[in-house]
Amino acid sequence: MKASPSRRLTSEFIGTGFLVAAVVGSGVMAERLSGGNVALALLANTIATGAALVALILTFGSISGAHFNPAVTLADALEGGLTWTEASRYVPVQILGGVTGTLVAHMMFGIPAVSISHHARSGPAQFLSEFVASFGLLSVVWGCSRLRSVAVPFAVGAYITAAYWFTSSTSFANPAVTIARSLSDTFAGIRPVDVPLFIAAQLLGALAATLLFRWLVPGLGRKAGTVLLAHDTEAADTESPASAAR
Amino acid sequence: MKASPSRRLTSEFIGTGFLVAAVVGSGVMAERLSGGNVALALLANTIATGAALVALILTFGSISGAHFNPAVTLADALEGGLTWTEASRYVPVQILGGVTGTLVAHMMFGIPAVSISHHARSGPAQFLSEFVASFGLLSVVWGCSRLRSVAVPFAVGAYITAAYWFTSSTSFANPAVTIARSLSDTFAGIRPVDVPLFIAAQLLGALAATLLFRWLVPGLGRKAGTVLLAHDTEAADTESPASAAR
Amino acid sequence: MKASPSRRLTSEFIGTGFLVAAVVGSGVMAERLSGGNVALALLANTIATGAALVALILTFGSISGAHFNPAVTLADALEGGLTWTEASRYVPVQILGGVTGTLVAHMMFGIPAVSISHHARSGPAQFLSEFVASFGLLSVVWGCSRLRSVAVPFAVGAYITAAYWFTSSTSFANPAVTIARSLSDTFAGIRPVDVPLFIAAQLLGALAATLLFRWLVPGLGRKAGTVLLAHDTEAADTESPASAAR
Amino acid sequence: MKASPSRRLTSEFIGTGFLVAAVVGSGVMAERLSGGNVALALLANTIATGAALVALILTFGSISGAHFNPAVTLADALEGGLTWTEASRYVPVQILGGVTGTLVAHMMFGIPAVSISHHARSGPAQFLSEFVASFGLLSVVWGCSRLRSVAVPFAVGAYITAAYWFTSSTSFANPAVTIARSLSDTFAGIRPVDVPLFIAAQLLGALAATLLFRWLVPGLGRKAGTVLLAHDTEAADTESPASAAR
Repeated sequence: MKASPSRRLTSEFIGTGFLVAAVVGSGVMAERLSGGNVALALLANTIATGAALVALILTFGSISGAHFNPAVTLADALEGGLTWTEASRYVPVQILGGVTGTLVAHMMFGIPAVSISHHARSGPAQFLSEFVASFGLLSVVWGCSRLRSVAVPFAVGAYITAAYWFTSSTSFANPAVTIARSLSDTFAGIRPVDVPLFIAAQLLGALAATLLFRWLVPGLGRKAGTVLLAHDTEAADTESPASAAR
Repeated sequence: MKASPSRRLTSEFIGTGFLVAAVVGSGVMAERLSGGNVALALLANTIATGAALVALILTFGSISGAHFNPAVTLADALEGGLTWTEASRYVPVQILGGVTGTLVAHMMFGIPAVSISHHARSGPAQFLSEFVASFGLLSVVWGCSRLRSVAVPFAVGAYITAAYWFTSSTSFANPAVTIARSLSDTFAGIRPVDVPLFIAAQLLGALAATLLFRWLVPGLGRKAGTVLLAHDTEAADTESPASAAR
Repeated sequence: MKASPSRRLTSEFIGTGFLVAAVVGSGVMAERLSGGNVALALLANTIATGAALVALILTFGSISGAHFNPAVTLADALEGGLTWTEASRYVPVQILGGVTGTLVAHMMFGIPAVSISHHARSGPAQFLSEFVASFGLLSVVWGCSRLRSVAVPFAVGAYITAAYWFTSSTSFANPAVTIARSLSDTFAGIRPVDVPLFIAAQLLGALAATLLFRWLVPGLGRKAGTVLLAHDTEAADTESPASAAR
Repeated sequence: MKASPSRRLTSEFIGTGFLVAAVVGSGVMAERLSGGNVALALLANTIATGAALVALILTFGSISGAHFNPAVTLADALEGGLTWTEASRYVPVQILGGVTGTLVAHMMFGIPAVSISHHARSGPAQFLSEFVASFGLLSVVWGCSRLRSVAVPFAVGAYITAAYWFTSSTSFANPAVTIARSLSDTFAGIRPVDVPLFIAAQLLGALAATLLFRWLVPGLGRKAGTVLLAHDTEAADTESPASAAR
């Protein structure tokens, strides 16, 4: 049974908030403790982020689809898994949730709630990185759609764990998270001036993957609703009345 | 088939004991070997704790629900998954198990069985951290309740792995564990004087998440018993007589 | 339902590309950040590679079998899971995908697209390492074939995570990846002159494991098609029309 | 369908060999690369071992039960999951496999095939550590037996990952592995003189957990055969003729 709109938006708000809090907070902790060893700091940041994604998608997937990401929401709308009206409500709530996540992370570490980032992230290598990162993320999402929807939380968590290291941008791959991280002058931050190109690359990458998988997996559109809104189907629950309503 | 009360309490005792032994023991090992690199020590401590949670919840989940945590037990009682009488027996057994875990960990490393911690953990940032950590933990538990109860061990393990890094308190998120760690003057310790506020924050966070999810997931109460006492249902076992009794 | 040949080849191309990009890219990032600590660099490289494998096999498994590896494709053809004609198309596409992965990884880090590696990897210990690594990889693939095909992504990811550390060659175990890595004068590179013996050892190891498991798991041949081309069966999808077509 | 005795023994031989090769080999690699940072070396050793266990149990579980460990085999025989005759064949094959694993690991790193370890591991703290480690391991095995047999590979891998850090002995928890590691004068070694007490502690711990779980999980004996010999049941395979034969 599909959750009500207010429940779904609340789910996206809290989930995106926790995701950003995990990214920013673990970055602060890692920088504090690692004594200047950036590889070690990024490793801790990576593990925290990947694990948070697994937990959060398992938690909120059955309520709102656990997008936490405007690029995913727009791609899903493109495939008809979500109406454009629904998508237009998801996106601002994700951004608001992400910003709240930054504030809460800062407060948990006793630093000012908002601080504009000075972390420069620009240039063609970074642009390509965000394009590839988002292309890969949406590939994972759509690729798991064919028969493996229960694997989405693990696939996405594993993918981002890898992508933190194989892109020079550390794979933001998420416009809401990018905006939220611009308000954090910490390890995970990004200068506001670099945000627009990051978001452009992310949307282009997501679009490219969506078009590719539309061809690669025939009938993807028909399944989109199931993939991203109810990737919680489990054999153990086949007796649940919910399965009839899906 | 529900396990008998003595079996369930034994399960909570041993499980909480192992959990605390994992937290404290890996902290001692990590501090010994890391040559002052705190990020590396915390990373080892994190991986050990997260992995222990996965193993222990898989092991004891079908016997007692694998709460190992008074905040979870009280939240479960609030939702009717456990009677208050049952809860009132779980909690002291969890505390006793946790303290035993500290003793055993110390003995495994050849240090005095009990040592009062001098590790100060106080202030509003720490209080907020424990509130958020426990709010998140209960969100994960309740969020997985809707359709994904078999995912609980992985979701909780992943969540705590992340939360160790994204909160300034390293996410105790568990009153029994907090008390047990006050008896360890090691990496994982906490001053006894800081314990009460930690526990208050944990209970408040758990309560807030429980109230939120009561609204977010309609019918949560009806399912509470299943979620936290028998999150072991597996498709492969549908032929088991146990399924009839649940 | 089996995907069309062009879709399957596209899937192998993109998947192998992402795999190599993950290996090479995370190697560059790790070397840049680790300040000369090779253990830390390899740990990051390992975690990124293992996680990438999990995500990529989950994503592309149901389309092309997610071989990404000529040794796997040839072993599969040997068991009749793939015709030799199909195999002869998979292999060059995997090599091309791998090389493209190297180029993209370099571009994401703003370094020349191609650079011939000077990283010497030769001698009997390295040869034995690649033999053992590939023997183990194919053992995992065939061993999971009996009843556990849904576990393949996790089993392979976990296996390579371990094998990076328990072989002196860091387990290339993949001819296409080996060729692609010879074009990268970075952490993950291998001198072109060392490539032929690596590939020979890989093919021998894969052959040995395939012959062993032909005896160890009676009826393996009959199942080969299912194992490596449709290891995506999930209980949740039994209602899918795809199951009838398998 | 139960595999033939020769196949099962071959499976135990290869599996135990790979397990020890993973432990010893990753120890050598870690020590070589970590520049004296023992925490980092142990972390790499831990991750490699835990991941190897997941992969190997998934691979060999359906053939021989993937014991790789005399303590597990004897406990299983005690519960009637294996006859004592079968157990008496498993144990020497596991030891032989383990020793072979040490030799192969050494050869993969170009060091002498055998070298008697000088790594002292003795005293009451180490004895207690091995008792607790093995008690925990068998608890995990039996605890997963009730309804979660498909979780065994992940539960065991996660458990050992944690136990490497929360015991002062780094949790050998396996007599065959202990003997094999005495032949390696490397990071993972143990002096031959310390082996007997390690094994005694391991057997006692395994026995204690088995007796406890005999009470904790009524009907455990009846299920023992299923738990450790066919923990490969998957929903996706219910149509397989194998299920009838189990």
